[in-house]
Amino acid sequence: MRHDNLLSAGQLSREDIEAVLDRAAEVAADPGRVAERQAGRLLALCFFEPSTRTKMSFDTAIKRLGGDTVDMGTVESSSVKKGESLADTVRVIEGYADGIVLRHPSEGAAKLASEFVDVPVVNAGDGAGQHPSQTLLDLYTMRENAGLDDLTVGIMGDLKYGRTVHSLAEALTNFDARMHFVSPESLKLPRGVQFDLHEAGARLREHTDLEAVLPDLDVLYVTRIQRERFPDENEYQQVAGEYRIDADTLDRARDDFTVMHPLPRVDEIAPDVDPTEQAAYFEQAHNGVPVRMALLDELLGGDDGGAGR
Amino acid sequence: MRHDNLLSAGQLSREDIEAVLDRAAEVAADPGRVAERQAGRLLALCFFEPSTRTKMSFDTAIKRLGGDTVDMGTVESSSVKKGESLADTVRVIEGYADGIVLRHPSEGAAKLASEFVDVPVVNAGDGAGQHPSQTLLDLYTMRENAGLDDLTVGIMGDLKYGRTVHSLAEALTNFDARMHFVSPESLKLPRGVQFDLHEAGARLREHTDLEAVLPDLDVLYVTRIQRERFPDENEYQQVAGEYRIDADTLDRARDDFTVMHPLPRVDEIAPDVDPTEQAAYFEQAHNGVPVRMALLDELLGGDDGGAGR
Amino acid sequence: MRHDNLLSAGQLSREDIEAVLDRAAEVAADPGRVAERQAGRLLALCFFEPSTRTKMSFDTAIKRLGGDTVDMGTVESSSVKKGESLADTVRVIEGYADGIVLRHPSEGAAKLASEFVDVPVVNAGDGAGQHPSQTLLDLYTMRENAGLDDLTVGIMGDLKYGRTVHSLAEALTNFDARMHFVSPESLKLPRGVQFDLHEAGARLREHTDLEAVLPDLDVLYVTRIQRERFPDENEYQQVAGEYRIDADTLDRARDDFTVMHPLPRVDEIAPDVDPTEQAAYFEQAHNGVPVRMALLDELLGGDDGGAGR
Repeated sequence: MRHDNLLSAGQLSREDIEAVLDRAAEVAADPGRVAERQAGRLLALCFFEPSTRTKMSFDTAIKRLGGDTVDMGTVESSSVKKGESLADTVRVIEGYADGIVLRHPSEGAAKLASEFVDVPVVNAGDGAGQHPSQTLLDLYTMRENAGLDDLTVGIMGDLKYGRTVHSLAEALTNFDARMHFVSPESLKLPRGVQFDLHEAGARLREHTDLEAVLPDLDVLYVTRIQRERFPDENEYQQVAGEYRIDADTLDRARDDFTVMHPLPRVDEIAPDVDPTEQAAYFEQAHNGVPVRMALLDELLGGDDGGAGR
Repeated sequence: MRHDNLLSAGQLSREDIEAVLDRAAEVAADPGRVAERQAGRLLALCFFEPSTRTKMSFDTAIKRLGGDTVDMGTVESSSVKKGESLADTVRVIEGYADGIVLRHPSEGAAKLASEFVDVPVVNAGDGAGQHPSQTLLDLYTMRENAGLDDLTVGIMGDLKYGRTVHSLAEALTNFDARMHFVSPESLKLPRGVQFDLHEAGARLREHTDLEAVLPDLDVLYVTRIQRERFPDENEYQQVAGEYRIDADTLDRARDDFTVMHPLPRVDEIAPDVDPTEQAAYFEQAHNGVPVRMALLDELLGGDDGGAGR
Repeated sequence: MRHDNLLSAGQLSREDIEAVLDRAAEVAADPGRVAERQAGRLLALCFFEPSTRTKMSFDTAIKRLGGDTVDMGTVESSSVKKGESLADTVRVIEGYADGIVLRHPSEGAAKLASEFVDVPVVNAGDGAGQHPSQTLLDLYTMRENAGLDDLTVGIMGDLKYGRTVHSLAEALTNFDARMHFVSPESLKLPRGVQFDLHEAGARLREHTDLEAVLPDLDVLYVTRIQRERFPDENEYQQVAGEYRIDADTLDRARDDFTVMHPLPRVDEIAPDVDPTEQAAYFEQAHNGVPVRMALLDELLGGDDGGAGR
């Protein structure tokens, strides 16, 4: 990967992606080899929105590389409350850290930030926009479980609002995967996203029911259907029930079927799936560490120990 | 100690306790010797309830061992708000860290967490349940100041709601200590706790007044009486006044008397006690560091540097 | 500098200040040389009020010296909510860390804290009181850009409430700088501060308009005018407009003019100033790191690695 920032999944070619995943696999196989790679480096964590797993995962990744973090804290405890612009905030923070991980409610925030600073910026979620390191760990998990060649992927749940889903689908076009989108009518993939995927040559189909397509899938990527999307509680309950996976679902799928979920889940996957071989969602979350280690190591560079910045 | 987790004071035998306290004393005597013992290890801090001293104390302990922390942050800034279960949260976090310190409002939370993860779990307080590392530092402080053999301990204040008190009393039965419980009627030790202590062979007596028993005590462990337990402000003021220690109290006690308090205190101990030799409550808080260093070192293991996990 | 604490700018002689600035310049020139100076040391961050840049800057500084931090967290997540006194809080925290950085809403808080603990205390802002490390980085930035000899400084904006301004002015008397204070009538320098400056032999003049004095200035230090100081929105808008710097302002100033601001800014400096050579406010924020590295290194000492505490 020859990039200074990671702003969107779309900026990554198939070769870029495979280089990061290969590097992540090396890191996962022998984390001790890179335990001092980023010694002396500081990564700024700038989360303008709540996060547990993404923030902890980046925090873990840089520390597993021997580096450390400086944390902006919550917006409530920061100068942002005093009306400071994002551009000013990141220009100040650039003086503290060797790289910036940014989550922000506004689409395009990471791109804007990257235009004001010289250190690498990683987009850790920008509103309805992108969350590319999530996409990389999703692809890594698919590759480990099913391979990325000749792949048939189901993507189910809230396809309308989920930035995770849009980035993932975009990235999968690089691998010519067959994609089946499964959702209630009201949460279908937006027209614009569909159009972009078609433009990129995606092979996709839409469904309102999982059953017909289930036996064909190598991987099913489940996402959370949010209660607050439905004005009516009964309608939510009905929809949530229809797009719920349990151990019985697995019986109707291929033997080497893989179930993924970006987490947190609420009811979309029943606990009886957790102990099965098909369940890959905790492994998927854990894969965030080697993938982000590979990513940070690439973006921050690694030979001069950081002290010379 | 041969345990994978520290969930309750009750799981610890006299030998377990003494092993940790001995190790803590070694650490306190020569912290430099263990300054790299946990290099490369990460401890997850998962505090679902506010904490200053317990959290900072664990944070300090792992860092004094050369390790580092990854912090879940406050519940408000985390996925927990999205309805994630505790089991899911800790299964994700297990992928980031080599051990988990958990504080949670629900009794039994640490035990439940330990059933879902393979890394060691330390219970840092579970509602009205246990807070065993507090008990260990309390015992360490008693041992340093008065010895644990042939000990007469007074425990005063809110004996009804204080988890600290229940764990400590349970642990003291291992050392055959004489225990005097001093409280207003409305805040007496619960029947269930009394029953368990009797079952364990405890030698205990209850009092509503400190004076009669004061001259017999080696140690007085004072706890905070919380205003919110009293519907009536006047009643609170009267009770708080009666169970308050000051320099005059010390005159009526033994010369080698020791005053402890888990902190924070409000008015239970007057500031004129602070500079006396009998005051051990700040030392007690400070003892959290070597005790937790000993504990973490035991639970996390220490020879392979952590990178090989 | 031969001090155990840094509580106020007033405690620093010209020699003290120059020693810190010289040391900071060395650190900035070769940060790698001090990258392990505070290895094993822990600095407690106790911020009872929100902060981004000051907190991150201290966090960065100790980590760039090879040390680490333990963070008290926000007041909402701490024992302070339970009614603990500041004296108790810092006496507990003294057991965790080798030094304490304290921000607190009450004037005199850092001084009080320093009387209760044996570790060094750095005042990172105490209400309307002092913020001396800010003053040091301000002076460092002035020295780098204009030199501290024969200096003519304008200080503009809210001169009534700004602790930054009062500390800076006090420190500048050590260098016999000419000071021009520019503000609306309602935000003039308080009588008491003026009196103290005159007592210290300061050469100062007051203005309500920048234009007359602008051509004489080596440095203009701009501060934020807070909307909430004005009962009337129209009055605020008028005042804010009059005390706003833009690229045109620079045309009427000396060629080697320098614009500073403690940040965060809102509208006081137009974005068209940002790319100019005169703009020094981001550099000023970045200077917080070497200045605080020099300061912490001085206060914490540096030879025995900290493990021997």
